[in-house]
Amino acid sequence: MIRIYENNLIEFCIKALKQYGVSEKDSRITAEVLAGTDAFGIYSHGTKNLRIYIEKIEAGALDPKAQPEVIKEGPAYAIIDAKDAMGMVASYKGMEKAIDLARKSGIGFVAVKNSCHFGAAGYYANMAAREGMIGIAMSNTDPNMAVPNGKGMTIGNNPLSYAVPAGKNDPVFLDIAMSATAALKINQAKIDKKLIPDTWLIDDEGLPTTDPQYYGNGGALQPMAAHKGYGLSLLVDILCGLLSGGAVTKDIPSWCFVLRAKNRASHAFLAINIGAMQLQEEFKSRMDEYIDYVKASPKAKGKDRIYMPGEIEWERKRKADQEGIMMPDDVVQSLEMVSKRIGLELVWIE
Amino acid sequence: MIRIYENNLIEFCIKALKQYGVSEKDSRITAEVLAGTDAFGIYSHGTKNLRIYIEKIEAGALDPKAQPEVIKEGPAYAIIDAKDAMGMVASYKGMEKAIDLARKSGIGFVAVKNSCHFGAAGYYANMAAREGMIGIAMSNTDPNMAVPNGKGMTIGNNPLSYAVPAGKNDPVFLDIAMSATAALKINQAKIDKKLIPDTWLIDDEGLPTTDPQYYGNGGALQPMAAHKGYGLSLLVDILCGLLSGGAVTKDIPSWCFVLRAKNRASHAFLAINIGAMQLQEEFKSRMDEYIDYVKASPKAKGKDRIYMPGEIEWERKRKADQEGIMMPDDVVQSLEMVSKRIGLELVWIE
Repeated sequence: MIRIYENNLIEFCIKALKQYGVSEKDSRITAEVLAGTDAFGIYSHGTKNLRIYIEKIEAGALDPKAQPEVIKEGPAYAIIDAKDAMGMVASYKGMEKAIDLARKSGIGFVAVKNSCHFGAAGYYANMAAREGMIGIAMSNTDPNMAVPNGKGMTIGNNPLSYAVPAGKNDPVFLDIAMSATAALKINQAKIDKKLIPDTWLIDDEGLPTTDPQYYGNGGALQPMAAHKGYGLSLLVDILCGLLSGGAVTKDIPSWCFVLRAKNRASHAFLAINIGAMQLQEEFKSRMDEYIDYVKASPKAKGKDRIYMPGEIEWERKRKADQEGIMMPDDVVQSLEMVSKRIGLELVWIE
Repeated sequence: MIRIYENNLIEFCIKALKQYGVSEKDSRITAEVLAGTDAFGIYSHGTKNLRIYIEKIEAGALDPKAQPEVIKEGPAYAIIDAKDAMGMVASYKGMEKAIDLARKSGIGFVAVKNSCHFGAAGYYANMAAREGMIGIAMSNTDPNMAVPNGKGMTIGNNPLSYAVPAGKNDPVFLDIAMSATAALKINQAKIDKKLIPDTWLIDDEGLPTTDPQYYGNGGALQPMAAHKGYGLSLLVDILCGLLSGGAVTKDIPSWCFVLRAKNRASHAFLAINIGAMQLQEEFKSRMDEYIDYVKASPKAKGKDRIYMPGEIEWERKRKADQEGIMMPDDVVQSLEMVSKRIGLELVWIE
C-alpha cells in the first residue's frame, strides 16, 4: 500500500486519457469518477481500470472523441445515445441531465444506450445528492449470473446505487449489484484456495457450490436472495436497456475480457428534487433524525456500532482527503503500467 | 379449500365495506384490490384482511369516509395526504395520479402520507402495466426487521413491487419485501415446530437463529442479502415516508396488531410512460424476446422450467378466472366472520 493525493491521481489520469484522444473536459470527468471511486475505497471500480479503458480505446472498441447525444426528450425524461463513448462521460452527462429535468419537473429519468462500463454506480448517485436531490444510478452488465432453476450465465448482476443527502450527516449511499456477492470475492477465494458460502455460486450443473473454481468454468453468480435479486436484476435491465432502446444480456460482451468488442452497456439515472416536494431543511433534519434513530438502536451481542449505508466509504474518503488515498498493490501496478506507456510519473506520497 | 368467483367476492366485499361507511366507489376500489390479490394467490394480503380493516374502522383508526387529497403537485410529481383513509383507496389514487403525470411528462412520482396498510404492492404496479407503462409501488411498514449489527425490530421490511407490460406474454411482475423472508413463513414454522434457515431471523441477542420461536419474542426479521436488503429498505422508507412528509419506523404502529392506532403508513408510486421513450410495440416485442431468452436458457440439474417473476401469479389468476379462486381455510374463516357480522352470505362455488 502506498498513498497518493486525489488531485495528483486525477491529474495523472487526465494526462493519460488526453494522450489517447479524450478531450480535456471528458478526461477530467473520467478522472474524477475513477479517482473519486478509489477515495471511497472501491478499488475494483476505480483507476485500476484506467489501463483497460485505454486498451479498449486502442482496440477501437471505445471512441475517445464520441459525444453522447440526447436523442429524445420530454418534461421529465431523456434518452441518450452514448455512441460508444467512455461510460463515465456518458453517465456523467446522463445524471447531469436527470438533475436538470428534476429541477424543472420534480423528477428526471434518463436512459442511456451504446455506452461502456461506467465504473461505480455510486459516483453518479452522489452527483444528485450534492445538488440536494435523491440520486439513483444503475447499469446493465454482460451476463454473469444464473436465474433461479437455470444454469450458466444468463443475466447480468446489474448494479444499482442510490444517494440521499442529510443535514449534519453524510449522504446515505448504497452501491450494490444484484448478485449475492461480487465475482471479485469468488476469484479471491480461488487464489486463497478457500471454500465459499453455498449462496454465492452455482456449479456447471446449476447447483449451489462451495467451490470457487466453478467461476469461469461453467458456473455463474447466484442472485442475492434468490428470486428477489433475480427480479430486481431484470428491472434494472429493463429500465436501462429496453427503455433506452439499447442492448441487454447476451448482446453485451464483457467490457474487460472482450477488449475488441464494443461493450454497449445501457444505464439509467433518476434524480428526485427533494426541494420541490418538501422543505429542503426539514427533509435534511428528518434524515438526520432517521440516521440517529438507526445508529442508536440496540446492538447485537458482540457488536458496538451500526453503520449507515455508505458510512464506511465516507470515512475512507475523509481520511483520503487528509492523508491521501491508500492504494492497494494491484492498483499501483496497473497505474505504473500506464505510467510507463505514457512516460509520465505518478506522484506518490513518500 | 373452497372456491369463489372473483366477481362474487368483490360484490361481497363492497357490501361489507358500505355497511361500515365506505362510499360505493371506494368500496369497489378496495374490494377489487383485495379480491385481485387473492386471484394472484397472495392470500396473506387479500380479502382475509377485510375483517381487520373493518375492525380498524370500528376502532376509529381508519376513516371510511376520508378522501385522500393532492396537497402538492408539479409537472412530474405529487404529494397526497391520505387522511387516514383505507390504504387501498389512497394507493389507487396515488398510482392513478402517477400514471396521469407520466402521460404528460414521461414519468410520474407520487408519495402518500397518513395512509394505512395498502395490501399487496403488486396490485398498484400492475395498474400501470395495464396502461402500457412500467409501474413501481412501495410502502413502508412498522418496524419488524433488524439492521446489520443491531438487534430487535428497528426498521420495516418495506415492500416494493414492479410490473412491466410485454406483448404476447403477461407483464413481468415482482412483489417483494426487503426481509429475507415473510414473517408469515416463520410463524408457520412455529406452528409446525420446524427449524428455519439461519438467514431469516435473529434471536433476542441479535444473533442468527434457526428457532422460529424468537419471532415475537425479542427477535427480528433479517434483511434479504444482509446490507443489501438493509440499504434498499431505507431507500423505500425515504421515498415513501420522508418525501411525503409522513411517518417512518417507530412512528408507524402495526396496522393489524394495534387496531386502535392510526397506522400512518406512507407509500410511493412511480409510473414510467414507455410510449414516450420508445415505440410501444417495439418495446413490447423486445420484452417478449427477453422473456423467451430467459425461459429458454439452460436448466439446472433436476429443473425443467424457468419462471419469469409473476408468471406463477398470472397462471393462478387465469385459473381463478375460469374456475373461481381457490380459497384457503383461514381466508374462508375470516370472510365467514364478516359474513355473520353483516348478515350477508358468501356465494361459494358448490
